[in-house]
Amino acid sequence: MPAESSPSSPQEIDLLLHARWIIPIRPHGLLHDHALAVHAGRILALGPAGEMTRQYRAREHLHLDQHVLMPGLVNAHTHGAMTLLRGLADDLPLMTWLNRHIWPAEGRFVSAEFVRTGTQLAIAEMLRGGTTCFNDMYFFPEAAARAAVEMGMRATLGHVIIDFPTPYAANAQDCLQQAADLIPHLQGLPRIRQSIAPHAPYTVGDAGLLGARDLAQGRQLPLHMHVHETAHEVEDALRRTGQRPLARLAALGLLEQRFLAVHMTQLDESDLQRCRDYGLRIAHCPESNLKLASGMAPVAALQAAGVRLGIGTDGAASNNDLDMLGELRSAALLAKGVSGDPTALPAWAALEAATLGSAEAAAWEDEIGSLETGKAADCIAINLDHPATFPVYDPISQVAYCAGRDQVSHVWVAGRALLVDGQPTLWEEKTLRHNARSWVKRIADEDDKA
Amino acid sequence: MPAESSPSSPQEIDLLLHARWIIPIRPHGLLHDHALAVHAGRILALGPAGEMTRQYRAREHLHLDQHVLMPGLVNAHTHGAMTLLRGLADDLPLMTWLNRHIWPAEGRFVSAEFVRTGTQLAIAEMLRGGTTCFNDMYFFPEAAARAAVEMGMRATLGHVIIDFPTPYAANAQDCLQQAADLIPHLQGLPRIRQSIAPHAPYTVGDAGLLGARDLAQGRQLPLHMHVHETAHEVEDALRRTGQRPLARLAALGLLEQRFLAVHMTQLDESDLQRCRDYGLRIAHCPESNLKLASGMAPVAALQAAGVRLGIGTDGAASNNDLDMLGELRSAALLAKGVSGDPTALPAWAALEAATLGSAEAAAWEDEIGSLETGKAADCIAINLDHPATFPVYDPISQVAYCAGRDQVSHVWVAGRALLVDGQPTLWEEKTLRHNARSWVKRIADEDDKA
Repeated sequence: MPAESSPSSPQEIDLLLHARWIIPIRPHGLLHDHALAVHAGRILALGPAGEMTRQYRAREHLHLDQHVLMPGLVNAHTHGAMTLLRGLADDLPLMTWLNRHIWPAEGRFVSAEFVRTGTQLAIAEMLRGGTTCFNDMYFFPEAAARAAVEMGMRATLGHVIIDFPTPYAANAQDCLQQAADLIPHLQGLPRIRQSIAPHAPYTVGDAGLLGARDLAQGRQLPLHMHVHETAHEVEDALRRTGQRPLARLAALGLLEQRFLAVHMTQLDESDLQRCRDYGLRIAHCPESNLKLASGMAPVAALQAAGVRLGIGTDGAASNNDLDMLGELRSAALLAKGVSGDPTALPAWAALEAATLGSAEAAAWEDEIGSLETGKAADCIAINLDHPATFPVYDPISQVAYCAGRDQVSHVWVAGRALLVDGQPTLWEEKTLRHNARSWVKRIADEDDKA
Repeated sequence: MPAESSPSSPQEIDLLLHARWIIPIRPHGLLHDHALAVHAGRILALGPAGEMTRQYRAREHLHLDQHVLMPGLVNAHTHGAMTLLRGLADDLPLMTWLNRHIWPAEGRFVSAEFVRTGTQLAIAEMLRGGTTCFNDMYFFPEAAARAAVEMGMRATLGHVIIDFPTPYAANAQDCLQQAADLIPHLQGLPRIRQSIAPHAPYTVGDAGLLGARDLAQGRQLPLHMHVHETAHEVEDALRRTGQRPLARLAALGLLEQRFLAVHMTQLDESDLQRCRDYGLRIAHCPESNLKLASGMAPVAALQAAGVRLGIGTDGAASNNDLDMLGELRSAALLAKGVSGDPTALPAWAALEAATLGSAEAAAWEDEIGSLETGKAADCIAINLDHPATFPVYDPISQVAYCAGRDQVSHVWVAGRALLVDGQPTLWEEKTLRHNARSWVKRIADEDDKA
């Protein structure tokens, strides 16, 4: 509700956003001709435009006459820096792709500077498409944090734990040590949170998993992990350990922490029960799962079971874009195809999953994911005055099923305008690309030799 | 090959398009720094840029420095006019959607003027996204033809044959009579071809199908029909007729005509054999099939069997956009997920399907679908200098997996520039939307009453 104030003395605020349609996510529904009052980076009030205009005098008053205003999209799972490897190798069997292209390139090139450059590109792309927060998992998270802070973005950065040697660490123990050392340095950075990110059940042994659990528990950080990405992963685990991977994680005590399971394309009844029992969050990455032929997550069954679902793009090397509007549309379409039910993951549920659901995946739901009073002012405007979204019988449907990333006109993170009329305010995209070209040339040359 | 000419007298031509990358589709592959010579609406030559510049003096010489130049995308199956019903009702069971929303709206509003207005909107949207030709199936095809001719677009218009009464015709016999009368009037219109379009096996009885076959044969027109869209369609036909729908069409002699089967999500070995035996063309509409939970076409199996595949968006009411770049990407991703094979429908094959494959679906492959000498100059430029398509290790992969409709900078149909720097040259999009608003208001009011 608008804060109280006498008609004669409107309250002075930073920003008033008057939009034709507002989808606040919480409360559920669609508002017509309402306005959002923003001050000091936070949502002060949301109410009917006339009332808000009388109540507040804003330093900046924006009329979004053809737009939907809604919470920023949240990318529930990505590897931002891998944008530098986008399209390096496609249409290959998974192990050929990894062994001949991705892992050699990572082994040779990954460094703090690679991560900073790649994450800058990822942030530029995500912001253009209305993503205001991303849940990252990659090496050198301090470099990704630096990119996010400089570019005004919000993020949760996962400290990767993995057994095999990388340019980042020698083994899981080394990863855990680096994470323990780094955590205090990232604490307190603006708009940055952290997670512990054991890579996957098949790349981290029990010792590494127990270390990850203890570190998450000790520092009160959530866990973020690829789980049940492929049928092969589950079958192989059953053969080697006699347990499904999720059962093993439960037995090792990881699921008692706040836990985000990414992918989850292979689920039986026992897995669904574990999702419910432990209150797991799921990051659904439909396009990556399709492109790598990993499988198709049973989204309708997860929603019926009340499991909280976020949506992520995965990295650009396996998607191949970081377009959350495209991803939530793919999720909405695929859920229907997989379940055989055209009412599965309807438009509103897809928008909720890509905002508040993904905010939960990134452990940010106390601050973002809905336009509620007191939350951070992370929001976006989508211009529906476009051939692809005409006519507008239902703005929620138009955003979920037709709006393109190019229709995102404005993006604010913590009340700061990062995209205005489709153009970034803090950087020149051409400069970012120019700065990345020396990496690209070296990566391409090396891949050609392989 | 460039036409012969002496170095001292370059040939005067209309247009020379010099592009950083060209994907001609035929021949297979990628060309760097080549140029396309266009004269009198046709492709005169394609060759290395230096050579072409010496050989030709062009009235207009365009340098597409960051662009891919390729054939225009062809929408293998749509109902253009249904753009007026986009988003009227979503996330509903198929029969609720049809019985309570779509059919009542069509029954009340469909007219020649409705079709003209809706098709104008569809053409505006398609052109913006790089589609230069569409294969339409809707009532009042003369009104759709008029919109296409006026807007410079290329199209094949299907004369709908359907048993039940519509505002267009009382029954199949009436449809056939109207088609027979109209065919001569559409013949000879620029860039317009025709087909006979029996709606579906379950909406047209044997008499209507035989009439459609005879009309197609008599006028030498192809057939265009929804076939095997859902499992229910096939099961129901088996129960009622003892035959799979495709077997019935074969028995009635329809498959001996040039035949385009749309959807085909349900295929057994006998169906695949029929596809091969009769040389059927398939229009694959992955997003519509997902959204209506109709099924998922076995694209990898069709390609392995050598069946020619085009890609279509279906109508905007069941997709909900007419974005062929998005559609070919969905096709490429879904083919992998459905087959479990990450090499299924690779980037190049998806581009081929959406250009030459769809041109075959629309019976236009003699004129368009590839940048071959003598064909019509229907081509598009896609600007890859964008956050979503950087870096460019492989332009073919970037177009198939990352480029958005907003990156389509130029569109030519028969050598005429219809989109320049992302803006249509022949119409104001806002005017088209303005003209359509009275329809939209009446449709919304009526739907609210239902």
